[in-house]
Amino acid sequence: MKVGVLTGGGDCPGLNAVIRGVVRKGVQEYGYEFTGFKDGWRGAVEGDAVPLGIPAVRGILPRGGTILGSSRTNPFTLDDGVRQIRDTLAKHEVDALIAIGGEDTLGVAARLHAEYGIPCVGVPKTIDNDLSATDYTFGFDTAVGIATEAIDRLHTTAESHMRVLVVEVMGRHAGWIALHSGLAGGANAILIPEQRFDLDQVCAWVTSRFKASYAPIVVVAEGAVPKDGDMVLKDATTDSFGHVRLSGVGEWLAKEIEARTGKEARTTVLGHVQRGGTPSAFDRWLATRFGLHAVDAVRDGAFGTMVALRGTDIVRVPLAEATARLKTVDPALYREAGVFFG
Amino acid sequence: MKVGVLTGGGDCPGLNAVIRGVVRKGVQEYGYEFTGFKDGWRGAVEGDAVPLGIPAVRGILPRGGTILGSSRTNPFTLDDGVRQIRDTLAKHEVDALIAIGGEDTLGVAARLHAEYGIPCVGVPKTIDNDLSATDYTFGFDTAVGIATEAIDRLHTTAESHMRVLVVEVMGRHAGWIALHSGLAGGANAILIPEQRFDLDQVCAWVTSRFKASYAPIVVVAEGAVPKDGDMVLKDATTDSFGHVRLSGVGEWLAKEIEARTGKEARTTVLGHVQRGGTPSAFDRWLATRFGLHAVDAVRDGAFGTMVALRGTDIVRVPLAEATARLKTVDPALYREAGVFFG
Amino acid sequence: MKVGVLTGGGDCPGLNAVIRGVVRKGVQEYGYEFTGFKDGWRGAVEGDAVPLGIPAVRGILPRGGTILGSSRTNPFTLDDGVRQIRDTLAKHEVDALIAIGGEDTLGVAARLHAEYGIPCVGVPKTIDNDLSATDYTFGFDTAVGIATEAIDRLHTTAESHMRVLVVEVMGRHAGWIALHSGLAGGANAILIPEQRFDLDQVCAWVTSRFKASYAPIVVVAEGAVPKDGDMVLKDATTDSFGHVRLSGVGEWLAKEIEARTGKEARTTVLGHVQRGGTPSAFDRWLATRFGLHAVDAVRDGAFGTMVALRGTDIVRVPLAEATARLKTVDPALYREAGVFFG
Amino acid sequence: MKVGVLTGGGDCPGLNAVIRGVVRKGVQEYGYEFTGFKDGWRGAVEGDAVPLGIPAVRGILPRGGTILGSSRTNPFTLDDGVRQIRDTLAKHEVDALIAIGGEDTLGVAARLHAEYGIPCVGVPKTIDNDLSATDYTFGFDTAVGIATEAIDRLHTTAESHMRVLVVEVMGRHAGWIALHSGLAGGANAILIPEQRFDLDQVCAWVTSRFKASYAPIVVVAEGAVPKDGDMVLKDATTDSFGHVRLSGVGEWLAKEIEARTGKEARTTVLGHVQRGGTPSAFDRWLATRFGLHAVDAVRDGAFGTMVALRGTDIVRVPLAEATARLKTVDPALYREAGVFFG
Repeated sequence: MKVGVLTGGGDCPGLNAVIRGVVRKGVQEYGYEFTGFKDGWRGAVEGDAVPLGIPAVRGILPRGGTILGSSRTNPFTLDDGVRQIRDTLAKHEVDALIAIGGEDTLGVAARLHAEYGIPCVGVPKTIDNDLSATDYTFGFDTAVGIATEAIDRLHTTAESHMRVLVVEVMGRHAGWIALHSGLAGGANAILIPEQRFDLDQVCAWVTSRFKASYAPIVVVAEGAVPKDGDMVLKDATTDSFGHVRLSGVGEWLAKEIEARTGKEARTTVLGHVQRGGTPSAFDRWLATRFGLHAVDAVRDGAFGTMVALRGTDIVRVPLAEATARLKTVDPALYREAGVFFG
Repeated sequence: MKVGVLTGGGDCPGLNAVIRGVVRKGVQEYGYEFTGFKDGWRGAVEGDAVPLGIPAVRGILPRGGTILGSSRTNPFTLDDGVRQIRDTLAKHEVDALIAIGGEDTLGVAARLHAEYGIPCVGVPKTIDNDLSATDYTFGFDTAVGIATEAIDRLHTTAESHMRVLVVEVMGRHAGWIALHSGLAGGANAILIPEQRFDLDQVCAWVTSRFKASYAPIVVVAEGAVPKDGDMVLKDATTDSFGHVRLSGVGEWLAKEIEARTGKEARTTVLGHVQRGGTPSAFDRWLATRFGLHAVDAVRDGAFGTMVALRGTDIVRVPLAEATARLKTVDPALYREAGVFFG
Repeated sequence: MKVGVLTGGGDCPGLNAVIRGVVRKGVQEYGYEFTGFKDGWRGAVEGDAVPLGIPAVRGILPRGGTILGSSRTNPFTLDDGVRQIRDTLAKHEVDALIAIGGEDTLGVAARLHAEYGIPCVGVPKTIDNDLSATDYTFGFDTAVGIATEAIDRLHTTAESHMRVLVVEVMGRHAGWIALHSGLAGGANAILIPEQRFDLDQVCAWVTSRFKASYAPIVVVAEGAVPKDGDMVLKDATTDSFGHVRLSGVGEWLAKEIEARTGKEARTTVLGHVQRGGTPSAFDRWLATRFGLHAVDAVRDGAFGTMVALRGTDIVRVPLAEATARLKTVDPALYREAGVFFG
Repeated sequence: MKVGVLTGGGDCPGLNAVIRGVVRKGVQEYGYEFTGFKDGWRGAVEGDAVPLGIPAVRGILPRGGTILGSSRTNPFTLDDGVRQIRDTLAKHEVDALIAIGGEDTLGVAARLHAEYGIPCVGVPKTIDNDLSATDYTFGFDTAVGIATEAIDRLHTTAESHMRVLVVEVMGRHAGWIALHSGLAGGANAILIPEQRFDLDQVCAWVTSRFKASYAPIVVVAEGAVPKDGDMVLKDATTDSFGHVRLSGVGEWLAKEIEARTGKEARTTVLGHVQRGGTPSAFDRWLATRFGLHAVDAVRDGAFGTMVALRGTDIVRVPLAEATARLKTVDPALYREAGVFFG
């Protein structure tokens, strides 16, 4: 048995831990051989492959990034992508594929399996935690930890100068990073893409916080948008999911708050530090277990499935189901956090 | 409505986050008043109480320890403990109690409710993660994170000197901290109380690691014990659960490994650093949500229950059930980790 | 003896450690009383004062920010600022002032002492490390540590996607933070305000790094500017020191690199996280010692001086000398780092 | 020109940064070749050598430990050690040696140069900071940072249970780690080897701290010893420096404090975590600069010298002078910290 492995999409702490788990278990317990495809689907299309044995995965557990590289190549947008993948698999005598990635990467795997019968197993990866069918994706806990530590630090600078501090965090169309880091960091307002925010309300929270002699921290997801009427959405774009996306919402928000409340406001955009570096212990644990279970899925011939976390168990779910829709923040959960606003 | 709050048992990161969650929601949404009892059940017995309002919980979210203090006082071992608690509750006009603690503290709450009709709600707390009926207890993720970071550091010192490094971690009679930190830290052997370890096997793993030109890290839970025959358990004690407990297992293990393999071995006992300091983002999130849901349980009159994590939901379970037995590591889960040993 | 204490200018980790050192030693060893003025010179001008005893400084050592608040108020730009300060000091019977701050705050202290005979002692504070006459200012080590950890994280994301990552760090007109964090973080180019950078050279370094199959990290100080001719400095402003300041240099640089090298480039602006939160051990040590020695300077009547670090000693230097000119990066030191560029 | 490099003695964060600095500058600026000797003087004696080029030092800057390995082999205690070293140098055509180590390793380098004319340059390394002639050694800042973070965590556990917490830190015969981490961590007593401690005084500090309603932290250096008469020093040993060494001083101290004050006391022995793992930014900076300047010393033929930090400058000092005596804590500096005791 020879198994191909690839990592696609954005960088995410824990990718190497998955690869190590797959290879250690596959080689030691099942006697499999492994081939790594470079830069996600690009390597599978172009036949850019490296052998992947025990020595290659030594010492990579605590390292961020991916030893296999990553890209956003999608074979279905190429002229002859799928045929090239089949050629690559044939040439390297690869019997099964483990694809580690987010919505895009796994969507490709789902179609390759469903439409072309290519034996694929998926491993869900995204710092955004927006994949259905799994309680958490690895990378998310690390991103939340980094954002929380930053918010901790910003509290003291906000208090010293009695300023508003707006912290823009990642998360694409989902508010998970904002909600978790905002709650863990003791933010005074958390704005998420799932619910358009009311600028007047935000300013009311800010003002009430100052009245209590404290300086407010506003955590805003990069995908958050204000309610209609609050602004001309002149910088907004609509993405392929039909979501309105406001570029630079953090910067915009600080300016609006400053103008409306008369209080000095500053923005910090955390950016790529949220997705790099060593994974948290939780993410190493989750990613390692995902790797171990992905290779078990291959052994069991459970193709077209994705490993997923349910409680403390690793289960298998259909790939198609997992990538069908975004997992967004439940309104009830968001309301729960609301007790800390203002 | 006036609600008493107390924290009992060992120190645990996240206690303050629970208290804050309880008070913020109770005061702001339900108009409750709160009284804190000092040092767990001791304060409830002796009537040592402090008012607990919004100002008291400001800024405590990221702080380890507990602003209410803690102790291991058990009213059922005192002459007249339960009567004194009833007097205290009457005197302070407390209508309900929120008890935050582990097996002992919650066991008391369960009996006070079941046998004396005192309206109690429980919140599970322990770094050891050994409470049934909840996926995780808060404090555990922080402890695992600290242990993992220590193991990361110890790898380099092991490699530089080609030594065995034995790391003794906490967990009492459960191997959760050892298993999670050992897996996340890339340990070469993990020894847990749930399965007596075979010293010959441990030495074989150590030797095989050296043969591959790497220096081994052995993570051992404080409650781990060797198989019969491996040693005269002269320092061992049997605790109230009938578990054999070997004092200083880490130190003992390093000496045995050194004697048997001829390799230099050192021990690090992580100790109390695992249970102090600022909680991880995950623990802040979990503890805060536990606090919010505990006050909801009071509002709903759901006494005799404990809040618990199931997947990503906070649910209520009977206190009696939650404290009936220890949650220990499943043998299948432990076997899963075995692929990384040696 | 009654001593006034104030903290002015930007937030800086270690301010509270100085205040604690001053008060602990002054009260316990010399029997002094202390008055804190709120928000730097504003409190001294407006008579906004708080008593400052041992209880007020308990537990503040590890906390970022300043319990006294801060502002950029300058009494010399007010109509009657100096007279108001004298009134405040008389009213509160303050015999001496300890001013903790950067160039602006200490410049005021220097003039108040030199021109009006007000007995002032200075303590140098700035994350930018740009104060002459001291080897280091506290806050700098913390800022460098935060920036270095961020660069560590960004390496993995750069490598995974084979992208250029531009990291903009603080430092105003000095390159200290950029130089130290860039060197500690293994940056492939470090751009500082002291030496105009050559965009062609930067692009050559970037290209050479990619040729060696690695992804480059470029650390750029917020005050860095390109050589004439590289761009129309349309967004540049000239500050009160005569320095040209380019707003958003990181963003601009990433766009230019992308355009010129054809490689994808991203920017991370670290921002205020560099100046908040708990101080590093080094900064706590330095700030504490500065506090102890500042109160000794008061006891010795050494007014018009500032405490300063020389090697491992704390010495006294004239305030006027310390604030006369910016301490910038020596060209030889910058060249030393050049071996790692490209 | 071919230069040998070796690292000896205990593990220390920053060793790899020195090696990288040496090789990058030596190869790129001077065209040197490098040979690494494995495990300190052992490799030089036995001819265990590896080529050391730019690829070998890629990515090692943030990694703890040493890629060259380490040992405590001393050629002067071997029958024919020096001759074997000369043979190795001749065989590998090595023209000069850069020895990175502490007192022992550099003492060997000093004698090899002085007595046998072998061209050696030294780089001072020790987490203990006990080398004369340099303001700081690299590794020390990292160790202090780790110990300080541990003390931060232990404060909350001490307060929650109103216990005494004794923290034993490293440092051999010098109190540097204890003094710096104790001061930075807000310890209530710091005990160092340079001054025998009075157990009655320690208990008085402990008691006074409890009277003020706080729980004390006692930081004790592993080499600290009590005053005569306080105990029968039955476990003490006398080392080659004539220092009395008490094994397990932390454990002993906690028992004595508990017995004398009636307060519960616990010990944490930080152990090897203090010397492993990624170096702090300060140590990366210092170690890198030491590496750059060591290769400059070779170029200048400045053999028999050691690079050293003086203020912010790297200077050269005679090796013999640097290793002649231990740098211990000055009594005045220790008294300075005393204001925080009790």
